[in-house]
Amino acid sequence: MTTQRMLTGDRPTGRLHLGHYVGSLANRVRLQHRYETFLILADLHMLTTANRADDIARVTGNVREQVLDALAAGIDPARATFYLQSAIGEVAELNTLLQSLVTVPRLQRVPSLKEMSRAAGEAEMSYALLGYPVLQAADILCVKAHAVPVGQDNHAHVEVTREIARRFNHLYGDTFPVPELVRSDVTSLIGTDGRAKMSKSLDNAIYLSDSADDVRRKVAGMFTDPNRIRPDVPGRVEGNPVFEYHRAFNDDHAQVAELETRYREGRVGDVEVKQALAAALNRFLDPMRERRSHYEQQPGLVDEIVVTGTERTRQVVRQVVFEARKAMGLAGAYNRLRRSAERHARR
Amino acid sequence: MTTQRMLTGDRPTGRLHLGHYVGSLANRVRLQHRYETFLILADLHMLTTANRADDIARVTGNVREQVLDALAAGIDPARATFYLQSAIGEVAELNTLLQSLVTVPRLQRVPSLKEMSRAAGEAEMSYALLGYPVLQAADILCVKAHAVPVGQDNHAHVEVTREIARRFNHLYGDTFPVPELVRSDVTSLIGTDGRAKMSKSLDNAIYLSDSADDVRRKVAGMFTDPNRIRPDVPGRVEGNPVFEYHRAFNDDHAQVAELETRYREGRVGDVEVKQALAAALNRFLDPMRERRSHYEQQPGLVDEIVVTGTERTRQVVRQVVFEARKAMGLAGAYNRLRRSAERHARR
Repeated sequence: MTTQRMLTGDRPTGRLHLGHYVGSLANRVRLQHRYETFLILADLHMLTTANRADDIARVTGNVREQVLDALAAGIDPARATFYLQSAIGEVAELNTLLQSLVTVPRLQRVPSLKEMSRAAGEAEMSYALLGYPVLQAADILCVKAHAVPVGQDNHAHVEVTREIARRFNHLYGDTFPVPELVRSDVTSLIGTDGRAKMSKSLDNAIYLSDSADDVRRKVAGMFTDPNRIRPDVPGRVEGNPVFEYHRAFNDDHAQVAELETRYREGRVGDVEVKQALAAALNRFLDPMRERRSHYEQQPGLVDEIVVTGTERTRQVVRQVVFEARKAMGLAGAYNRLRRSAERHARR
Repeated sequence: MTTQRMLTGDRPTGRLHLGHYVGSLANRVRLQHRYETFLILADLHMLTTANRADDIARVTGNVREQVLDALAAGIDPARATFYLQSAIGEVAELNTLLQSLVTVPRLQRVPSLKEMSRAAGEAEMSYALLGYPVLQAADILCVKAHAVPVGQDNHAHVEVTREIARRFNHLYGDTFPVPELVRSDVTSLIGTDGRAKMSKSLDNAIYLSDSADDVRRKVAGMFTDPNRIRPDVPGRVEGNPVFEYHRAFNDDHAQVAELETRYREGRVGDVEVKQALAAALNRFLDPMRERRSHYEQQPGLVDEIVVTGTERTRQVVRQVVFEARKAMGLAGAYNRLRRSAERHARR
């Protein structure tokens, strides 16, 4: 039995933080053992925002940081294939071939698109943004992925992919697997400010690449229970970012339970809780730091992993797009002309 | 000074009739001397209709007929380059790269799209159909055309191309010429039934490939002035298809003037007018028949012309899409990674 393929990935926005880890990366590290994994670095999806030119200018650096972080987190380049979307022209070609298989009203009903349109900073929705789910379908179908991990926010997008695959198979004959949604109980992580989701732009993130000192400093500055003005005041551990991190990252579960009890009873100071958290986070990050240093010691190795993956993916995609063109009758039309022209030339 | 490029073409729907000749082909035969001419066989544009699978199945045969007709009509393969759109993946790639440069409301304002949507036979407008003008922009810009001949119906489409070219140049630096519209006083030709525009589906067409006998038979059956029940009744030459064809195709202008006078005065029978027309049309078509027989005597020659043209165009398009990717910063991002990976591999 051949291993099934999984496709997942993100736009290359640069280094990854703990929120990315719990949101998707941990899941990918796990799933790479179950699926032949393709990790897309989706730079074409950056063309839909107002600041696309700046975003693209940063792609090289962002790819390096993001892939290094993923490798440090445990993605194994022997199991998972990274590829840079824009470098494979056939992905964009497949996008064009799929565009007739979905209607404008269907795309307009995708809930996240309106939100993305606001975030894009453009006055009117671009044609590319309305077609975001079609390009995603091309991303997924171009490697004939069987599985796509989804969180709540991209569920509706992958549904469009499934519809497009079914419609293609119905019109032109069985070509694409209809990819399954691999639902994961994705937890989003609160930022160190305790106010919003961890996010690069809000300056409330702990990065996978942060040093032990960075981690101690950031944890020391974290928000806790705002009503607890002295260590002997009973505190809340629910919704308290320090304890959320303890539960998510501290491998010493007994310590977490003990600190929670004392916190609730007003028998522990913030400093002790935070020092324990910083130590736990550093224990969590230490193996990543070791792997990171392994990759960093070989200059160009990360770049080589991306390029090798991209070239490997290009071979897969070329074959799949050829099959699609063949099923649609487009490849046959040209090949008949070419064979006949060759016979003519030989005379 | 380099010769400027012109791009024009149609979907490959098969053999051409006199309506195609006066509507566009005559113009192309003329313009090929002024421009380096690219003639697109736009099969990707067939994907937007409900009967796309049937249309694509007929592409090979339709391309052969249509190109042979164009060659017979005087298109010189040494001056004009035919190419099959779907065979050049980079055209579809450029389509994807351009999609962010135009908004959904802008495309929704293109007047012909609603009509095309009705004609497409689909219940709802497909995403591809809304993006028809974007794919046309890719068709035009992928060869850096300076000029596009336009009739009234595709004027608005080419305006979208001009906007996309300007927007690309503004965002990413001067890359594409903003193509000029070459307006031609395109006359549409009434069918032999005198009721509607000449059209394959209405069975009211005289084809460039019709034999002399076909022409005589079709002209004999043409509608004339319906109020003229006898040769001695004065007739109308305006709006009379037989006289419209005389004015469009009969090179013996004195004969046309004389027949018109006699017709108006009720001094000529339909048979004489029609025989003169059939003779004139056959004089008009004879040089086409000679060229046709030249091409037909060399089996595979038409196919070779299409394939050679497509391969030649592929080289042009590859270079242009590379320039576009470079201007956008996409080529640079991957090349930096690749060069660094190569340095690493050499150690």
